[in-house]
Amino acid sequence: MTTIIATYLVHDNKHNLNKKAEGIALGLTIGSWTDLPQLQQEQLKMHKGEVLSTEVFEQSSQETKGLIKISYPSANFSNDLAAILTTVFGKLSLDGKIKLLDLEFSEELKQSFPGPAFGIEGIRDLLQVYNRPLLMSIFKGVIGRDLDYLKEQLREQALGGVDIVKDDEILFDNPLTPLEDRVVAGRDILDQVYTETGHKTLYAVNLTGRTFDLLEKAKRAVDLGADMLLFNVFAYGLDVLQALRENDEISVPIMAHPAVSGAFTASPVYGFSSKLLLGKLLRYAGADLGLFPSPYGSVALERDAALAIAHHLRADDVFKKAFPGPSAGIHPALVPVLFEDFGIESIINAGGGIHGHPAGAVGGGRAFRQAIDATLKGQKLTDAAQEHNELKIALDLWGY
Amino acid sequence: MTTIIATYLVHDNKHNLNKKAEGIALGLTIGSWTDLPQLQQEQLKMHKGEVLSTEVFEQSSQETKGLIKISYPSANFSNDLAAILTTVFGKLSLDGKIKLLDLEFSEELKQSFPGPAFGIEGIRDLLQVYNRPLLMSIFKGVIGRDLDYLKEQLREQALGGVDIVKDDEILFDNPLTPLEDRVVAGRDILDQVYTETGHKTLYAVNLTGRTFDLLEKAKRAVDLGADMLLFNVFAYGLDVLQALRENDEISVPIMAHPAVSGAFTASPVYGFSSKLLLGKLLRYAGADLGLFPSPYGSVALERDAALAIAHHLRADDVFKKAFPGPSAGIHPALVPVLFEDFGIESIINAGGGIHGHPAGAVGGGRAFRQAIDATLKGQKLTDAAQEHNELKIALDLWGY
Repeated sequence: MTTIIATYLVHDNKHNLNKKAEGIALGLTIGSWTDLPQLQQEQLKMHKGEVLSTEVFEQSSQETKGLIKISYPSANFSNDLAAILTTVFGKLSLDGKIKLLDLEFSEELKQSFPGPAFGIEGIRDLLQVYNRPLLMSIFKGVIGRDLDYLKEQLREQALGGVDIVKDDEILFDNPLTPLEDRVVAGRDILDQVYTETGHKTLYAVNLTGRTFDLLEKAKRAVDLGADMLLFNVFAYGLDVLQALRENDEISVPIMAHPAVSGAFTASPVYGFSSKLLLGKLLRYAGADLGLFPSPYGSVALERDAALAIAHHLRADDVFKKAFPGPSAGIHPALVPVLFEDFGIESIINAGGGIHGHPAGAVGGGRAFRQAIDATLKGQKLTDAAQEHNELKIALDLWGY
Repeated sequence: MTTIIATYLVHDNKHNLNKKAEGIALGLTIGSWTDLPQLQQEQLKMHKGEVLSTEVFEQSSQETKGLIKISYPSANFSNDLAAILTTVFGKLSLDGKIKLLDLEFSEELKQSFPGPAFGIEGIRDLLQVYNRPLLMSIFKGVIGRDLDYLKEQLREQALGGVDIVKDDEILFDNPLTPLEDRVVAGRDILDQVYTETGHKTLYAVNLTGRTFDLLEKAKRAVDLGADMLLFNVFAYGLDVLQALRENDEISVPIMAHPAVSGAFTASPVYGFSSKLLLGKLLRYAGADLGLFPSPYGSVALERDAALAIAHHLRADDVFKKAFPGPSAGIHPALVPVLFEDFGIESIINAGGGIHGHPAGAVGGGRAFRQAIDATLKGQKLTDAAQEHNELKIALDLWGY
């Protein structure tokens, strides 16, 4: 029988995890069991949820904290994420202190999901960059600015040697810099830089607007030469990401931004685990790159949580691996730590750490690339800084 | 200048709400201000977020709890909910203990949203029922059951005098009872009951599946005679609800189910307030009926929170009013409390309180209708129970 297994963290004030688990397994499937006639039990058996385990962690007079694992037959839902989430965490999300930590899809169920179209390898092939983390930077302060301003920023970032430049996620379609103009101008600038320097940079344009316009908008962006899409998936829904991924005419990688996701991952007792939402489900639905708060900045995730997201984006599975992009608070001096925490198959993503460099975004990009090269060679950054002025300036500014 | 005003509840461990608020107002709009040249300040002024107020509630050595109000120029976003949520609670949702309590749309911005197509008055007109709460019941234990089983349940519920019967939200498109067959069979049964008794019941069919199939599926359901759609909006996105509402061919009321919403409303310090998500935004996006946990059952919302949702669904605004449907734990003895808490312009929605009646769903429906009639007349239920056997049995079973 093909199933999905949900793992919940519960804080139960009735102190009976087994009873709670049984209530969930029946309540979210066939409703009742013991009072059904034998014949109906036979008929409904394939639809019955099953408690796989309960485990008590802590007990206080107020509540019992523990894990519940329940298996739901996939015969109960259509194979889409909206149906799955409604089954395993629909009504249940409203039922006291409960957090959905993990979902394990049966191999058969996985076949209804696409995973990344490009993944780590596909993006590396586009860039022809292997054996080092990719460097990404973010447009900064672009609201209310015109296309010339964006073009200049893009050029500076590309000249600094970044591999990917992403739109600010709060830049929507707007009269000054509409999506189509950004794509065309971006293509132009990046082709120029490539001609001048031989360095290739991809630009991830922010796909925004009404849900039912997204497919056409994305196709149009691709037709105009877009390299990559940035998508605020949690302001829409994972199923929308999946539809973008599955459309053959939208033949570019998709970068998922974590905007709004804190609303359903931040609480330790409610909502979804960040590793499930920003890691596993994002990858299953088809994100090629997944951004999430790094453990280092002011908008930070705990280190374990950030590592768990990266793990799920790259774990052995039937899907291609997606790039993890720990974000916020990243500057060149952190490169060795980033290597240690996230490895080579990751994105080093910086905003202020690029634009805030005293020599501008060109200097910021160079400082990062110098730090990456040094770390790859096993060289200390302070040693490398003696040969590389941009890195020296960065270390002086941000500390080491 | 047209704006949206966001109110946040924060628990700030840096003890400086003003600084935090200024950081948000700039960080989520133009990025920086004081270091900009005068000319650029002039150009960007219309895009700058503005702190309207900060208010400290409580201070401990660990954190300062308080409210922050920020106004965001609508020039910064396209007029869709995905852009609005990304602006006011995108990155910010990931930034520590912060909960979005309210959004105030400028009158101009409201014009981009439809509100309910039918609303309370429109649904009353469909039913020709005025001056009392509507009675709704839910299919029960229908997973794995065939169409005959559903038809019988629907007939029983309609014969009991309920006004609306809704699908179980975990019933998806499935081989035994596909959407189209449910609509056609439901139409048939309800027409029969109307012919036999003169009582009209509407059936809300669960619209499920992949996002980009929903519009066509909904149109097909309407073509086949669907009365109403049930929609798990929070497993998709508010913008998808809005698109269903705005499509002229989908000419039936839409009932929004709160499935999955607990994941982003349940925490007292993170996510969205339930009144904003299940009340105001649901109505702006176009729900005609909004369901939410009642304050009475085991899956319960605090009374104040439930009343606040109902308030936002019906508050004076440019939009039609939507029906509040407090759900779970409702039985006939609660009818006077429901009147007091939610008034006449509401839905009395029961599952177990209908089906669990010793005389079946027919008896359950009658008991509720008797309780409603008695309460309208100012009669005590215990007095009314002396004349009405179904009500008497219900009060005996569920207590009074």
